Formats: sequence, C-alpha cells, structure tokens
Amino acid sequence: MKPPHSPMKKRTVKQPTPGERLIRPLVRTLHPYTPGEQPKVPDLVKLNTNENPYPPAPAVLKTIKAAVDGRLRRYPDPTAEPLRARLAKLHRCSPGNIIVGNGSDELLALATRAFVEPTESTRLTAQGMSLSTVQYFDPSYSLYPVLAGIHGARHNAVPLHDDFELPSLSRLRRGVQWDFRAALSFITTPNAPGGRGYATADLDALAGLHKGVLILDEAYSDFAEENALSLALKHPHVIVSRTFSKAYSLCFQRVGYFVGPVELIDALHRIRDSYNVNGLGQVAAEATLDHLDYYQANFRKIVAAREQTAKSLARLGFEVFPSQTNFLLVRPPRLSAEAWMHKLREKKVLVRWFAPPTVRAYLRITIGTAQQMDTLLAAVETIATAES
Amino acid sequence: MKPPHSPMKKRTVKQPTPGERLIRPLVRTLHPYTPGEQPKVPDLVKLNTNENPYPPAPAVLKTIKAAVDGRLRRYPDPTAEPLRARLAKLHRCSPGNIIVGNGSDELLALATRAFVEPTESTRLTAQGMSLSTVQYFDPSYSLYPVLAGIHGARHNAVPLHDDFELPSLSRLRRGVQWDFRAALSFITTPNAPGGRGYATADLDALAGLHKGVLILDEAYSDFAEENALSLALKHPHVIVSRTFSKAYSLCFQRVGYFVGPVELIDALHRIRDSYNVNGLGQVAAEATLDHLDYYQANFRKIVAAREQTAKSLARLGFEVFPSQTNFLLVRPPRLSAEAWMHKLREKKVLVRWFAPPTVRAYLRITIGTAQQMDTLLAAVETIATAES
Repeated sequence: MKPPHSPMKKRTVKQPTPGERLIRPLVRTLHPYTPGEQPKVPDLVKLNTNENPYPPAPAVLKTIKAAVDGRLRRYPDPTAEPLRARLAKLHRCSPGNIIVGNGSDELLALATRAFVEPTESTRLTAQGMSLSTVQYFDPSYSLYPVLAGIHGARHNAVPLHDDFELPSLSRLRRGVQWDFRAALSFITTPNAPGGRGYATADLDALAGLHKGVLILDEAYSDFAEENALSLALKHPHVIVSRTFSKAYSLCFQRVGYFVGPVELIDALHRIRDSYNVNGLGQVAAEATLDHLDYYQANFRKIVAAREQTAKSLARLGFEVFPSQTNFLLVRPPRLSAEAWMHKLREKKVLVRWFAPPTVRAYLRITIGTAQQMDTLLAAVETIATAES
Repeated sequence: MKPPHSPMKKRTVKQPTPGERLIRPLVRTLHPYTPGEQPKVPDLVKLNTNENPYPPAPAVLKTIKAAVDGRLRRYPDPTAEPLRARLAKLHRCSPGNIIVGNGSDELLALATRAFVEPTESTRLTAQGMSLSTVQYFDPSYSLYPVLAGIHGARHNAVPLHDDFELPSLSRLRRGVQWDFRAALSFITTPNAPGGRGYATADLDALAGLHKGVLILDEAYSDFAEENALSLALKHPHVIVSRTFSKAYSLCFQRVGYFVGPVELIDALHRIRDSYNVNGLGQVAAEATLDHLDYYQANFRKIVAAREQTAKSLARLGFEVFPSQTNFLLVRPPRLSAEAWMHKLREKKVLVRWFAPPTVRAYLRITIGTAQQMDTLLAAVETIATAES
C-alpha cells in the first residue's frame, strides 16, 4: 500500500503543467494585468480613471454615425494616412513624423520593443546594460515597468522630489540613479499621478543630456499651460506621445499618436500590426480635429473646476498639489487615504487610491463637471465633519 | 584645400545616422510593411483582399449607431468580457478559453512573443534552437515570417504539395524539414492563398505529434465544410484563430479571437495591451452573434458564386484549385498571371497576384456578389478571346 498523499504532494510542488511548459519562462513570471474598476452600479460619480466628463462634440458623433455603413466590411487605412496628414498640418511637421496607434499604450509598447534590447540578448555585454534599460520617474505612469517586464528589459525607477518636481539637472548628473545612456526613458509630463507640469525649458535641457530615446508622454498636456511638442521636432532622439482618449473624449475608440524624428517613427511602423487602428477610431479622430473649439471650451471648464475644487479641498484641510492635468492629487486629513477612498465610495463617489509606498498617502481625483465636483465636495464635507 | 567629395563619401557609406543608432539592429534590418493596394478609383470591382461583398446585417449597423454616444469618453471593457462570454457559449467552452484581439493579427503577434524565444536569447543552446522556431507551410499567410522577423526568431517554411495539400504524416515524420519540436507552428486552414480545406482528422493526427504550440488559423473556416475548433478544446497545445473580418464583414473594426487551453490564453492576456479591443468593435461583434442567420445566408451565396465561378473559369481554360474559402486560386491560360492581373485591372477588375516563386503562376480572386462575378467573367472572356 502506498503512503497516503506523498506522490500527489510531489506532483503539485511547482511542477509546470503541460501548458505552462509551452510558455516562455519570461512570460510565465509576469503577473496578469488587473484592470481598473469599471463600476456596475449606475449612479456612482466616477472620478477614478481620468476620463473626460463631457461627451465628444455632437458633430463628431454625427460623423461617426454616418460612417457606420457598408464600409465596415473593408479594411481601414493601414497607415491612418488621412489622419496623419491632418495631424502633421496641426503640428507643422510631415506625416513621416507621425505614427498613429491603438491608443498611445500600443505605441509605448512598440517603443520598448524597437529601442530596448532584452536583458537575455547575447548582444549585451556588462558595459552595455544601458541598452537594456527602460527608465522613468517614480511615481509616474504605472504602465512603464509593466512594458519593461513583458519585454524582458531592466527597469530603472528614479524618485521624483516629494512634491513631484523633477530632480535638478545637477542632482541627476551627480547621481548614479538616472542613466543618461538608458536605451529608453519615459517622462510623464504633466506628471501622473502627481499632476505637476514641467517647464519645456527644463525638459529641453534634460533632453540635451540623454544619449538614448526620450519619450515625453503628454497624455494630459491639453489641460496644461505649456507643452513640449517642439522638442520632438528639435532633437533626433525625442518623441512626444499624445492621445485622443482623455482630452478628446475618445477612450472607447483607442486612438493615440507619436510625433518624432522620421527614423524613429519609421522603426515603429516596421514592427506594428498592419491594420493597427480601427476605422471608426480614425473617422472619429479626424472629425475631432474639425471641432477643436468645442474641446478647448471643455478644457477651460475642466481647468476652472480643477482650480475651484483645489481651493475647496484645501479649505477642508486637504493638502492639494498643483495640477496641470484633469485630476488632483491630494493628501486627505485625519484618516488614511485608503479609508477616505472607502468612505467616499459609500457616498457613491469613486476616486482612485494607489497602494505603492510613494503614493499611498494620496487620493487621485479626476475633475468632472461642476455638478459632480459639488457632489464630491458635499461628501467630503460630511465625512470631514463626522471625523472632526 | 580638401579633396572634393571624399569626406562626404565616407560619411554616406553605411554610417548609421544618429537616429538609426537608437534603434535595435534587429529592427533596423526589417523591411517596412507594404500595405495591399487600396484603390482610389471608385468604380473598380475589388476582388483583391478577400473582404466580404455584403455589408454587416442592418440590425448590426443599427446597434453600432445606437452606441455612438457619450459612452465614447469611457474606456472599453478591458477584457471584452461580455463578448468572451457570448463566444464561450457559442463554442461550448469557458470565457477563460478565449482572448479577443485587435484583429486576429494582433493575437498571432502576441503568440509569437509568448511562446517563442528570440534567437539572440542566452537561454538557447545548440540543442534548443527549436525553442526559437516559428514554423508554417509555404504558401500560407505571409504574415508569419514577418512576425518571426520582428521577434528575432527563426522561421521554417515547409513546402505544401504542388496542389496545396498537406504533406503526408509519414513524409513529415521522415523529413527533416518539419520540426515537431518547433516552439510555434501555424497552419492556415483552409489554406490561403491555396484555398484548400484540410480534414479535421488529419489536423488532429498532426497535432498529436507536435511538442510545441500549434495554431490553426481559421480565418476562412466559415466558408468551409468543416472546421477544427474542437481540437483547441482537446489538446493542451492547440489554439484556433478566428476573425470577424472576412465572414462577418467587420474588417474595419478589428476584432479577432483565439480559442485555446486556459494556460496558453492566460499567457497571451499577460502580455497584451490593457485596452486592446476598441469599444465599437466589441459592440459590433456582440451584435453580430445575434444575427448569425443573416451571415450564414451570405456564406451560402458566396459558396454558390464560388462554385459557379470555378466552373466558368475552368471552361475558359483556367486551372482552378478546389476552394473552401471566399476566394479562388487559379492558373490562367496563355499569358502570365502577372499579365492577366494587369489586363483585368485595365478592365477595372482588381485581383491579387503574389510575386513569390511558389505562387507567381496564379491569381487569387476574391468571391464577390453574383453581379461582380459576371463582370469578372465578362472581362476574362474578352481578354481570352483577344489572346486566342
């Protein structure tokens, strides 16, 4: 008689299943992506994912609807040629300076694969480890380390100041942490989740020191006082990332783009999927460019609500960081940020709390309509009163 | 005084530009993608890209239009959960067996990255080169070698029989060419551009011999007498690829999916973009599943037109290969296939000619409406008469 359990135990200890053996060890160690919460409760005030509170322009919706016809059976334009032509005109560059992606997330992933060697590459020597480095400030967009992990690259996260300002150039130069030879560096500008905007002059000086590719991720720049698009047309190694998602209310349709030097953009075209941008997304983005005045009016409303909300929250005892985006990062009083997040949710207001140490003391609050901000502030006031 | 030209000459001989130096050598050597022709002339009969001649069901168009509203500002479902649930019900499996992609092209690329080691990986030994092999029959979908190239993998193209039948198992077993240990093998079934369908029993026997992942790419299976979906739910290493593009008239919106073992599907989820499938594409695909009868009626019309066209072309002296798809591969009489392609274009009929040696003797003709086929046949008859 066999001893009970022991053979079973042996079999269950870390033996890869037949399916697991077929998967690259690199991929086996990755954690599956956990998407942000999409609430099923309909009447929540949703201030957790930096979506624009205003719908696309009525004329844009009309144009998309008019395109829902027999053309859906055809392949979309493989290079988004008409959209790139329009964007080139807007940014005073050539269509060769532009690549359109399935959201800017796709393009950030393509950049990792085009510009960074995996650490297991036989091309790397001890001296050449910078060739395998994806670098970014912490905190910033949490996708960057995920992309480095998927590609099998090193990641180098360098702390921002406590107030989310960039470390000074002299400090970066002195320090060993920031690697100016890193194959690929990302700067989220304005920063997320910090909210702070960075001066183009500072980014220009920083770019001048970089030897590798520098991507300025401007997902929120339409809410800021300045942007650094000019740097993508000045330096041979700088790319600016933009998206139609947040400022142009098109998250649903996945359209982002890069502006940058022709050679770098061309490298990304070589490795993208042939038909990477869906047709109705292209139609929507082109129509959006015909109605920029509508969106700019919304930016002004959002910026006004942001400044008003910042003042009100400060009055209620919150530490509020200056923001050049469509959200505010705040440190709530008395209770922990996590507790505030739960209490606000009980009052049907959804805000974002991140667990990592550098940001766990804060809440990130998306700027909604003036009415949604009133709902938020009323809830905050009730909670603050109960706790005081 | 400097000698004229010589310093310039030195500089222009293969010196990488500052931009090129930033790009991985692997990517620098890739050729940029050349998209298939999208004719600007409006009155061409377009039989060159295997699009469905019929538009989506009227009810599907109506559902998509109704979704073009304020929801566009929100992110789409990150895992296409409702669509996966519907597909799981259709295919009698679990949503965990399904991943939806930005067209099946995205999923084929993800599979290469999840299951195949780059050749430059330090993990590879001389014995382990199969770990780095992407394998497929020639001719089949021309994307496979492109994906292998982008990933830095080996590719192993094994000839089909001259009539596009699979080599026999005994021949594959004997031969050194087909590598049953290859990390990833693709079989286009029914074959493109050959058109021939493969018996599920034969594919099952082949699958039984494979040690690596086997993807059965069923882009055209809705036009075939049988499909091999059951094999994806039987073997721990087999995946079936499907698309809404061709059979369901949704090329424009980029929706494809894989059905396969949970562990393999989960590996693909780990490395995909967070929001990889656009929202209106998800809406369109879900609505399509409510109206399968409309599409099935179209399949019957297309199959009838295919058989009719095959007979007519044979009568006109063409060698016509049996097809289980929405296209015909034919060897035209008297003139070269390339010359036929040009002559048909002069008569405003666009068909596909491929330059590679294994297929350059043939034309691939997409099956359109009965009326479009009449136009094609009239053009063919005029050309044949002029040349006889």
